[in-house]
Amino acid sequence: MRANTSLFVNLVRSKQTIYGPAAFPPCAPYLASSVMVDNEPPPAILTIAGSDSSGGAGIQADLRTFAALGCYGSSAITALTAQNTTGVQGVHPIPPEFSLLQLSSVLSDIEIHAIKTGMLHDTDIILAIVQTLKGHYTGTKMPPIVCDPVCVSTSGHTLLQPGAIGALINDVFPISTLITPNKAEAELLVSSKYPGFTISSLEDMITAATRLAEYGSACLVKGGHITASLQDVERVIKTHPQVSVVKDELLEENMEILQVGDDGLRSPRLVVDVLDLGGDLTLFVRPFIVSENTHGTGCTLSSAIASGLGRGLDLKSAVRSGVMFTHLGITTAPKIGRGHGPLNHLHLTSQLTIPKRTPSNPFPFTRLLIQKSQPVWKQYVEHDFVKLLGQGILPKEAFTYFIKQDYHYLKYYARAHGLLASKSNKFSDIHSAADIILHILRELETHKSFCAHFGITADELESTPQSISTIAYGSYLIDIGMQGDPAKLTMALLACLLGYGEVGLWLKREANMPGSWVKLEGNPYLKWIEDYSGNDYQAAVRTGLAKVEEQAVRDPPSPARLQEWCEVWEKCTWLEKSFWDAAMSGGNTTKIS
Amino acid sequence: MRANTSLFVNLVRSKQTIYGPAAFPPCAPYLASSVMVDNEPPPAILTIAGSDSSGGAGIQADLRTFAALGCYGSSAITALTAQNTTGVQGVHPIPPEFSLLQLSSVLSDIEIHAIKTGMLHDTDIILAIVQTLKGHYTGTKMPPIVCDPVCVSTSGHTLLQPGAIGALINDVFPISTLITPNKAEAELLVSSKYPGFTISSLEDMITAATRLAEYGSACLVKGGHITASLQDVERVIKTHPQVSVVKDELLEENMEILQVGDDGLRSPRLVVDVLDLGGDLTLFVRPFIVSENTHGTGCTLSSAIASGLGRGLDLKSAVRSGVMFTHLGITTAPKIGRGHGPLNHLHLTSQLTIPKRTPSNPFPFTRLLIQKSQPVWKQYVEHDFVKLLGQGILPKEAFTYFIKQDYHYLKYYARAHGLLASKSNKFSDIHSAADIILHILRELETHKSFCAHFGITADELESTPQSISTIAYGSYLIDIGMQGDPAKLTMALLACLLGYGEVGLWLKREANMPGSWVKLEGNPYLKWIEDYSGNDYQAAVRTGLAKVEEQAVRDPPSPARLQEWCEVWEKCTWLEKSFWDAAMSGGNTTKIS
Repeated sequence: MRANTSLFVNLVRSKQTIYGPAAFPPCAPYLASSVMVDNEPPPAILTIAGSDSSGGAGIQADLRTFAALGCYGSSAITALTAQNTTGVQGVHPIPPEFSLLQLSSVLSDIEIHAIKTGMLHDTDIILAIVQTLKGHYTGTKMPPIVCDPVCVSTSGHTLLQPGAIGALINDVFPISTLITPNKAEAELLVSSKYPGFTISSLEDMITAATRLAEYGSACLVKGGHITASLQDVERVIKTHPQVSVVKDELLEENMEILQVGDDGLRSPRLVVDVLDLGGDLTLFVRPFIVSENTHGTGCTLSSAIASGLGRGLDLKSAVRSGVMFTHLGITTAPKIGRGHGPLNHLHLTSQLTIPKRTPSNPFPFTRLLIQKSQPVWKQYVEHDFVKLLGQGILPKEAFTYFIKQDYHYLKYYARAHGLLASKSNKFSDIHSAADIILHILRELETHKSFCAHFGITADELESTPQSISTIAYGSYLIDIGMQGDPAKLTMALLACLLGYGEVGLWLKREANMPGSWVKLEGNPYLKWIEDYSGNDYQAAVRTGLAKVEEQAVRDPPSPARLQEWCEVWEKCTWLEKSFWDAAMSGGNTTKIS
Repeated sequence: MRANTSLFVNLVRSKQTIYGPAAFPPCAPYLASSVMVDNEPPPAILTIAGSDSSGGAGIQADLRTFAALGCYGSSAITALTAQNTTGVQGVHPIPPEFSLLQLSSVLSDIEIHAIKTGMLHDTDIILAIVQTLKGHYTGTKMPPIVCDPVCVSTSGHTLLQPGAIGALINDVFPISTLITPNKAEAELLVSSKYPGFTISSLEDMITAATRLAEYGSACLVKGGHITASLQDVERVIKTHPQVSVVKDELLEENMEILQVGDDGLRSPRLVVDVLDLGGDLTLFVRPFIVSENTHGTGCTLSSAIASGLGRGLDLKSAVRSGVMFTHLGITTAPKIGRGHGPLNHLHLTSQLTIPKRTPSNPFPFTRLLIQKSQPVWKQYVEHDFVKLLGQGILPKEAFTYFIKQDYHYLKYYARAHGLLASKSNKFSDIHSAADIILHILRELETHKSFCAHFGITADELESTPQSISTIAYGSYLIDIGMQGDPAKLTMALLACLLGYGEVGLWLKREANMPGSWVKLEGNPYLKWIEDYSGNDYQAAVRTGLAKVEEQAVRDPPSPARLQEWCEVWEKCTWLEKSFWDAAMSGGNTTKIS
């Protein structure tokens, strides 16, 4: 019934298998909160290739790609190049025996999950490497090898001695999982069996892939140097009914709202890579990007594919991820150097806002909160109210003022936990919020007994008007609770929990010092000190700490979100300080001066 | 009045300047949402050093460190080593002229923001490098140089020819901003002027730093191989009144609650690095870590400091960041290889969940949402209700059922935007929510006129009971609004906005095709199609798209948060589909079968 005019409707409607992004979005393989979790060793990938001084290609691009994709990289260097974004200024080959020594050093020590080969320079190095690999993996499974058959640099510099092509074909390809020639390399390699072969169309690319796959590995012929259009893809699909099409970054049907405009999409120039996987053909189709920054594209792609294989992806998924990783690397490349600049290998990389937990810093998030608000935190936990209370000389009026206002505050605090329960999605969170409410209600009894001790009746307690400080702090908790998510509300609730814990612990430790300024004996506020330094309250502090730390690991905040959390925390720290200010001045702060 | 028993109270109370973490938390210099923003070129750092095949040290560690700290790395290789985590199996020196050729390739093309030197192998290479640098920077300011005076590997392998120490001292140090010797290197270097000098205490380290600073650069003597304790630090402070102390990862005062336990903290073994910056002494104090994974520590530290300098930090801040970066790299290192494994250079690195915006994918976040829920999205926007409506043959009962329920739904939808306004922190957000409410109220008029057209009175519209689907969808919006932050509520509100936009656009495009199945002429629902395909509604769609995309960039979600967003979006997409299901079955779904 429908006759959608979406660009790719014919592809979608055709009988070919379409790897729809729904099942496998572009960045899915990289979806991880942190590259290394819990010191889990990352997959180790080995590159056997040349070095590029400018850093955009060679082992430098390989290692940067491995790292960006969460893999550990080792290298056996076959040749050094002095090069930059404008060209290759010199090549210094490494004696084959020293290439081998590097290879042996790595293989004998580190378990390798995938290998990528790049510039292999000459026949001697090629033969030596293949022999070493075969020797090392005798009797065990060789890890997947992605061979980028580097022959000539983008700037036209010969990177493989002409006589070495035979060794590449006869020795490297048969042990490779995948080879990744570009147009020129594919022509050269096919021509050694089918002389004079050239590529000028998508059909030629398919022929090349099929012929190269005869050498013993899967083959990805890269289409960066071949002009292709949607019409070419549609034509090929008609003549090759079994071909699959992967079309990330192109518009799907049912996504009309995401179209940028008609002009650029009617007949866009496309890049098509052709994968022949044992006769199973796949076209990887994406928009062509006009960019100067393509230095090291081949190195990056083969390294990204090797990283995918090292991570356990199947070949087609690894190619798909690698192709998109490289595409986005070109698209987002900054300008470096005067010529063909390097890709951006870090387009998927961001930096954590909270340092990792270590034995000497088991609460990195809470520590950050406190450190970022240090002056206010200090004014709060070292408040004169606390110091005088510790010495037992806090005026009775200040304490009763405080305790009466705290009674009101605790109602807000309990309600805020009710709000937290209402915002929770797990019974365990609802449970812990309810537990805290019950704890608060028990704390109320302490307040009542203090009041009784100081001659304040329950009626007087109840009828005391709320001070400005109490209204401000209590209402702020409810406001933050209404405004944000449970995490944000938790930040608001934390200053009270942790600050009283800190004060309790501090007074207790000080009291134990010889000649301490803290007087427990005869201190009218002894019970208050005992309550907050006691095991019950301190256990609640530990629980709270564990909870916020766990949350910061499970759902690490962006810089913007961390900033928001810090502001809420600091505001509450300040409101706590103000609460004690009000007690010390007997509520003077509420009067207009 | 206080006599805090915190470990470092004496340090804090002393007159020395303390670089408190409040002003400069450990990860602050790395605090960035994304390493490369808007294709802004990162600072380029050059390493002149040896290559380590295992990848844990040498240029490999340098380049990984640069990348982890958001810098671009180039390299001039002076020597290759075949090594692994158990030792160095061989060294292949590079001819000085080829080291220089690499150096020239880089310097002539890429603007370098900082240089790090490592293994320089012999006198010839050293002299050639210094001459080239001086030549290149004649008449312009040389970038900061951090010289790691590598002499001997951790495993005992000589990495600098004995005769080359003089060249290091006389030629490299004077052009360096900082040198970073470890114990053995400091002893060797000091001994060339003060024969027989050895380091066995913190005081010796200070002497070494001061004497080495005489060679013309600032000096950081690394304390990894020297046992130090709190008492040592306190003693040094008394005898060196001008020394500053930086003590990241050790407990501050006012942080009693963050103590892990007493035992480990009373007399912990410390690592102290000593920085002499033109007579200005700073001790960098941190806990000693028992770890085997220290391969490449020196390379990592000097590279991290160079990255900091390249980013524009002052020397003391760059050293502080570098020291913490390296410390956390050791602490979080995974086990790689059989011997002294490499550090974790990626402890601050995480991966973005949403690909970067590109010209061919300007709405990457929305695209991801739709792709991840593709089957449900398709059932929604290609619903039979839409297809029949487009053909003009949708039963009148289905349409009136829909329009009456939609009238109720719009009340929820307006209320949800009120909730969104109440959760907003900026007038602009409150404004846009209010605008949408007004837009919804205008949409109501359309509904009323449709109803009048189909013979439904205003009273009948108002008194129609809400269907299960309407209650479910409407209440879900309010629930999500109560539960989460504005971002989560926005996800819930999006399915309605985008889906109707998609349907409107689709029907309009199809109608323009020759022989289309969409009939506009005489279609009783023409106005409905015109409304949702019209400029007004489509402009609202564009605004919504821009807003969610901007939000995803400003506050990139963690994987957990993205997952939550996707679930809310998909649920609403499904509720939209169910809404049309109900219309098609005339509300049969509300009956118990």
